[in-house]
Amino acid sequence: MSYYEDTVVQMGRTLRNLRAMLDKAAEFAGARGAEADCFVGFSLHPDMRPFAFQIQAACDAAKFAAARLAGVEPPKNPDTEKTLDELRARIDATLAFLDGLEAAQFDGAGEREVPISFLPGKAAYGADYLREFVLPNFYFHSAMAYALLRQAGVSLGKRDFITHLTLHDVAS
Amino acid sequence: MSYYEDTVVQMGRTLRNLRAMLDKAAEFAGARGAEADCFVGFSLHPDMRPFAFQIQAACDAAKFAAARLAGVEPPKNPDTEKTLDELRARIDATLAFLDGLEAAQFDGAGEREVPISFLPGKAAYGADYLREFVLPNFYFHSAMAYALLRQAGVSLGKRDFITHLTLHDVAS
Repeated sequence: MSYYEDTVVQMGRTLRNLRAMLDKAAEFAGARGAEADCFVGFSLHPDMRPFAFQIQAACDAAKFAAARLAGVEPPKNPDTEKTLDELRARIDATLAFLDGLEAAQFDGAGEREVPISFLPGKAAYGADYLREFVLPNFYFHSAMAYALLRQAGVSLGKRDFITHLTLHDVAS
Repeated sequence: MSYYEDTVVQMGRTLRNLRAMLDKAAEFAGARGAEADCFVGFSLHPDMRPFAFQIQAACDAAKFAAARLAGVEPPKNPDTEKTLDELRARIDATLAFLDGLEAAQFDGAGEREVPISFLPGKAAYGADYLREFVLPNFYFHSAMAYALLRQAGVSLGKRDFITHLTLHDVAS
């Protein structure tokens, strides 16, 4: 179950959180008579990729991780988004792909061989791929998207980024 | 082994990456005749916590995760760092704590009950605590530290944030 939880459930949750942040950004712009799509090109530095790329990269990190670990072909997404609505649709398309996977497809995912596209002849095992590459990469781009909205003044806090912790009662 | 890998090994690796970014930041400032410690107070927005806090929070995320999952008492760190050297020392202290733990202490960590300090009477199981809270929180603060240096102009790329992927050769 855990590779399913790590990808479909947890990354899906974070993508939903990002979508909610897009809604807050649109509201923030609207309240100021500004174009919601202004955010799409925002960047922290002239030589750093903009907001749209950060959302695309977070979506792709989740999509490729789930596809590689479940052993299925990932759908193609051509990175053409130019508006907040299109970025929302990109997130929704990623969520639809994730939600179409079954927990059983992730059986043995930790030992699955994941080919590394830019290193022909090399592969990583699923467990290392998830821990060493996917998670830092996914949260990196998700956090950059958050940072760009936060810097622009959108009212966000850590509770927008982390929204859920499974708890139980303990005997006192 | 995997909870040990997730915390001591992988978070330790990321903390070492952050330390290397501090070195690059000091070099960047030095080359411009600026004070390296200028970075300590940098923030993305007036109501967002500054660079020093982001490093402290990343260190604490790793420290508390390893302590809770290994079932040991975490050391105390009073958050008094005011210079880049002191932040480097904070990272080193965190790494010393992590490196003092043994893989066997993490046996059964996924089922361990982790008390939630701000929710008395509630606890999370180790597996959920790591996946839903620790990892997003740790990478969030690590990425914010990266974002602040990047925005200031320090030459950093994703390869400073993700430095290692365990690979093997595959038959062609």
